[in-house]
Amino acid sequence: MEQFNKSQETHLWYTEYHTPNSGITLKVKETLLRVKSPYQELVILDTYEYGKMMLLDGLVMLTERDEFIYHEMITHMPVNVNPNIKKALIIGGGDCGTLRELSKYPFIENIKMVEIDEEVVKASKKYFPQLTSGLSKNSEIIIGDGIDFVEKTNEIFDLIIIDSTDPIGPAEGLFTDAFYSNCRRILSENGMMVLQAESPYFHADSIKIFSDRLKRIFGFITPYIAFIPTYPSGMWEFIICTKKELDTSLKSKSLIGDFEQMLKYYNHDVHSGAFKLPTFVKKIYGI
Amino acid sequence: MEQFNKSQETHLWYTEYHTPNSGITLKVKETLLRVKSPYQELVILDTYEYGKMMLLDGLVMLTERDEFIYHEMITHMPVNVNPNIKKALIIGGGDCGTLRELSKYPFIENIKMVEIDEEVVKASKKYFPQLTSGLSKNSEIIIGDGIDFVEKTNEIFDLIIIDSTDPIGPAEGLFTDAFYSNCRRILSENGMMVLQAESPYFHADSIKIFSDRLKRIFGFITPYIAFIPTYPSGMWEFIICTKKELDTSLKSKSLIGDFEQMLKYYNHDVHSGAFKLPTFVKKIYGI
Repeated sequence: MEQFNKSQETHLWYTEYHTPNSGITLKVKETLLRVKSPYQELVILDTYEYGKMMLLDGLVMLTERDEFIYHEMITHMPVNVNPNIKKALIIGGGDCGTLRELSKYPFIENIKMVEIDEEVVKASKKYFPQLTSGLSKNSEIIIGDGIDFVEKTNEIFDLIIIDSTDPIGPAEGLFTDAFYSNCRRILSENGMMVLQAESPYFHADSIKIFSDRLKRIFGFITPYIAFIPTYPSGMWEFIICTKKELDTSLKSKSLIGDFEQMLKYYNHDVHSGAFKLPTFVKKIYGI
Repeated sequence: MEQFNKSQETHLWYTEYHTPNSGITLKVKETLLRVKSPYQELVILDTYEYGKMMLLDGLVMLTERDEFIYHEMITHMPVNVNPNIKKALIIGGGDCGTLRELSKYPFIENIKMVEIDEEVVKASKKYFPQLTSGLSKNSEIIIGDGIDFVEKTNEIFDLIIIDSTDPIGPAEGLFTDAFYSNCRRILSENGMMVLQAESPYFHADSIKIFSDRLKRIFGFITPYIAFIPTYPSGMWEFIICTKKELDTSLKSKSLIGDFEQMLKYYNHDVHSGAFKLPTFVKKIYGI
């Protein structure tokens, strides 16, 4: 007969509820950091399955094991659609993963990242050095309010990446007409704004409203999808917003030639595949 | 001050551990069925998020809400690659979802489904009528051992779909060289065998070994992927095995014309997109 083992190890589990009725649960080695910044609660957990994991206000932002998918897909998809990018702007993205990916393109002359919460950048430097190393010399990290930045700047950008949390908490102002209108104003004629747009599986209604607004403000939107195991449903949506209709085809095969072998998700096949949407996703966009 | 509410409802949660250190957790309304068949434990839970859910030996097989993805993708991908399918064989698939999808093609003259566990078919008829209704008049449900069937039959099939559980329990014999060799023997020259091959994210090592074996036995393998929220990591792999190199392009645009609007996942875009593998998945296959 099996005996009850009285001297077991103590195990902690972190559960993120993706909806009130479902979630993922991960076994935790230890809590490495828990701080309240002026903007949000920032926690770094060390998990058995996904390695170190960053949470903001109780939601998974990234994990060591699968961060490559989000960061490669929010970056290489737009750049390979329009390789004439000289100036890029990242709003948010304090973990520096998006900046790391953009840094791989030597032809981008200037990259500005505007992150409101310095604690996120500091924590990333300490706990996720793979995200913060190898950044381009042409990059600049500005600790400040992205809403304010896009309102006041007169610089013109060829690529704006909104790498933010969801529309609760400090990122709320990043989901307003005023913010998007300013982004459009500082976008070059062939420029692109890219953002993450949650799960088409769980958030169809909010994606519908959200994407209709983006279309109204920018003119054209082009959605694409990627597998992200630690995000709700594992299916994650990105939207490219443009002033003109977007030709999504790959513009230059040699563009990522030199570092394609460094990437773990994005490749030329994925480039075209990610724009191919399942029927229930097309229906959200009425396409 | 918030008061502790003593009279709360009792809530049950079902957690499936995808690895020893991670899983999904779902809030449960009630247990509708729990039987021990001669082969396995069969449980039907009613969940808040995914509706009714079938579990075999404690693993999620399908849910009302996302079953369409698995069943559409294991069926329409191969049929649209080779529309000259007259005779089809399903091994397993007792829930009848795969049979339902195959039944949509009037040009398939005969479909046999060989399921070992009658309890699965019965439970599906009772709890998932949407899976078991509208089956083709040309279809035949055989309660029997699939291993035995492929060993003894001399019929030749144009499509064999292995719609089984993982290689533990009653499906163990479906993962042997002997079984696959028999499948190859009863496959027509341009025929295809399709199977589900777990998550490339969690099961890379076993997919590597498994796919090498299939390649050795059949000659050619062609993997593709789909998003399935209730399966581990949400990224699920399928493999088409053939005797000749497979041209994966869509063979006839009109093929699913009449019922494309009935489908919720598969469409002509998805057809090509699903073969576009992320780099870390390509590496598993050495492609």
